[in-house]
Amino acid sequence: MPDLHLVVDRSRGVRAGLEHALREAIRTLPPGTRLPSSRALATELAVARNTVAEAYGQLVQEGYLTGDRGAGTRTAATAQVPDRRADKTTEPPILHDLRPGRPDVSTFPVAAWSSASRQVLNTRPHEALQYDDARGPAYAREVLAGYLQRVRGVQATPDQIILCTGVRQATGLFIRTIARLGLTSFGYERPGQAAVPEQVLRAGLDLRPIPVDEHGAVVGELGDAGGVLLTPASQFPTGVPLAPNRRTEVIAWARARDAVILEDDYDGEFRYDRQPIGALQGLAPDVVAYAGSASKTLAPGLRLGWLVVPERLVGAVIEEKTWSDRHSDALSQLTLATLIANGAYDRHVRASRLRYRHRRDDLIRALGNDFRTGAAAAGLQVVVGLPGQDEDAVLRTLAGQGVVTFGLSHFGTGLPPALVLGYGAAPQHAWARTLSALVGALRSAHL
Amino acid sequence: MPDLHLVVDRSRGVRAGLEHALREAIRTLPPGTRLPSSRALATELAVARNTVAEAYGQLVQEGYLTGDRGAGTRTAATAQVPDRRADKTTEPPILHDLRPGRPDVSTFPVAAWSSASRQVLNTRPHEALQYDDARGPAYAREVLAGYLQRVRGVQATPDQIILCTGVRQATGLFIRTIARLGLTSFGYERPGQAAVPEQVLRAGLDLRPIPVDEHGAVVGELGDAGGVLLTPASQFPTGVPLAPNRRTEVIAWARARDAVILEDDYDGEFRYDRQPIGALQGLAPDVVAYAGSASKTLAPGLRLGWLVVPERLVGAVIEEKTWSDRHSDALSQLTLATLIANGAYDRHVRASRLRYRHRRDDLIRALGNDFRTGAAAAGLQVVVGLPGQDEDAVLRTLAGQGVVTFGLSHFGTGLPPALVLGYGAAPQHAWARTLSALVGALRSAHL
Repeated sequence: MPDLHLVVDRSRGVRAGLEHALREAIRTLPPGTRLPSSRALATELAVARNTVAEAYGQLVQEGYLTGDRGAGTRTAATAQVPDRRADKTTEPPILHDLRPGRPDVSTFPVAAWSSASRQVLNTRPHEALQYDDARGPAYAREVLAGYLQRVRGVQATPDQIILCTGVRQATGLFIRTIARLGLTSFGYERPGQAAVPEQVLRAGLDLRPIPVDEHGAVVGELGDAGGVLLTPASQFPTGVPLAPNRRTEVIAWARARDAVILEDDYDGEFRYDRQPIGALQGLAPDVVAYAGSASKTLAPGLRLGWLVVPERLVGAVIEEKTWSDRHSDALSQLTLATLIANGAYDRHVRASRLRYRHRRDDLIRALGNDFRTGAAAAGLQVVVGLPGQDEDAVLRTLAGQGVVTFGLSHFGTGLPPALVLGYGAAPQHAWARTLSALVGALRSAHL
Repeated sequence: MPDLHLVVDRSRGVRAGLEHALREAIRTLPPGTRLPSSRALATELAVARNTVAEAYGQLVQEGYLTGDRGAGTRTAATAQVPDRRADKTTEPPILHDLRPGRPDVSTFPVAAWSSASRQVLNTRPHEALQYDDARGPAYAREVLAGYLQRVRGVQATPDQIILCTGVRQATGLFIRTIARLGLTSFGYERPGQAAVPEQVLRAGLDLRPIPVDEHGAVVGELGDAGGVLLTPASQFPTGVPLAPNRRTEVIAWARARDAVILEDDYDGEFRYDRQPIGALQGLAPDVVAYAGSASKTLAPGLRLGWLVVPERLVGAVIEEKTWSDRHSDALSQLTLATLIANGAYDRHVRASRLRYRHRRDDLIRALGNDFRTGAAAAGLQVVVGLPGQDEDAVLRTLAGQGVVTFGLSHFGTGLPPALVLGYGAAPQHAWARTLSALVGALRSAHL
């Protein structure tokens, strides 16, 4: 007879607590293991025998136990979680996380999210949880249209918004759509988001890389590309904003060639020293699509994103979304809309901006005059040049001390050696420790 | 000066309630509208003047208001939600919903879901909300592996599970993966899920339709196809289970040809008259992939699905998922895992099964001997033959009385006229009314 080590949480009722404890215990037992009689277990736990008998009966119904008369109550053959665990990793642990493009999820507004989610479930009609428009719930798109207009200057009706699971899905939907419409080549920034060239190639388009200088992407090199992905507010990962004359230039290029621009506004809310730069989309909603998400402002794990497209592309993008995954999660989208409407989202973004601004200042101060740092007015990362160094060797030295970040070469080929230091990722309580570990590791790499 | 009609909800504090009420009011006002002075508004609402001044200041910060000295406080140009509303529809309203493939979302377990979601947020490490493994959270995959083994006989480690946003995404990921691996044609059931042929064509594969008879899909006609999608537990939409000898036959076919089978177990939990038929995957995990979701058991709007694949395909499917949308929503997946682990999911499925079984019985009884109904031992729909009738004309007559369902022709070409009556969609309280509306409408169509 096994020792079950049952810890019964009586807060949800003895019967439910006992069932829960039994289920957990059964998962660890070999199939066919005989359990104590209901009388014996009742005595041991000081509960009514009937309660144990009912719990056993329930677990027989659920397939955890078999209850043949005579053979006693035994664990069923199918109740075990397979032994082999996922994600056995051999990578060294990340003690100090300086990976770019990651926000601090330790500040996620748990109470506000839970209460907004419950509010949605309690007040919206049931149909909100039924199959829906491929673009997502109309209410969520209305609120988001207002938010993007107010905060980023995006000009769009709710009809033009396709809610999706993040910028990654947004760029994929957009690129596949224009490939289907007959475009044959697509420009992207180098350095830039590593996923974009992969998505372009998978859609069967030719790649047209364009360089980035101190005025942002060199859009004059787009030539006869049919479309381009740009990060105008703060180039990823260099942080350089697209200069005003380049903005004008790329819009004129798109209009003249009937090309389309996809604006990846991946962290448009985080600009520290002055007013945020409005979205490029607001200047030319006819040729600019706009992708954004709550991955940096709330948490990547929620997979909340959106794609705003020019009216003439709405039908084709809806079709692409429909065949990809019908539509995205209505409950979390309506929860986000509720947080935007009740002001909690704005408050969280403001508080986060302040925290990241302090971290940015700390980082620049700590790096001092020993390093050439790139643009740092916005975003969650700073590029630090490594002239004459071996980028890989520096990354290895850092990793050996638990300091994990990316090199610039992760974001494109043929780039000078540099680190891309993300100051968003560390939990707030660990930031000071992370920063001093970084400084120590850089010193030990003789930088 | 506009009348603001402010209703201040003081339950969250006067300042926050006032800000909220102001935001809502501002959305309805033209840009540049002058607001009352803080003194006047404070008097009107009987709150401290300072509270109004602070709320105005906050809304200036957020971009709702402009506060130039001299010009007073005015609504900003960017705060309005665009007027044009999404989803103006001209379709007649669905008074009586008999669409197939839809569950009753009115019974969604709101309290259990909210509490499990809060539990996840309060007890899991923050990192659960960070960017994650493309397959989804390890804990959710472990729990799901145990559940699928216990309930459906699926044989898989958590490593082989890719959590995704539903069966639609699962079939798309699988079909694109095998296209990339070099397969050139793909079989599908006719009648069958309408999306599958579209996804096959978009992946650049040839279509290989196979017919369905009283033993399920006629797998002998697969010939040299490289793969096939089947619904073995209960063929969609005819409800016929795949006969035991066909199960053996299709597995032998796949092994002989190195082909792959995708099992769409879209409503495997709902079988009414005897034990559910175990998944085909459990018989041959080497050649059968398995797709399922919580769309019928909980609600489609949550977009919770999973794809289980043979070990040799895991890497390729992870890649496909990575470039599609990185990974899926961790919070809702962990919430589902919590509901499975604490037994609430099983209880909900059992209660739903009982409700649907009663509905199935009601429907068969109401149709009586006047109609030839198809298999009805499982699933959420019944096919009703319309020999000698015009399917479209019958659907129009029904729709004219608010009764909306699908014809068999929605699920494939060259099929006999029939209705596919879904008894899951109606809310529980409306079921009796829905049923009698259906019977009345069928009578008025002279059927």
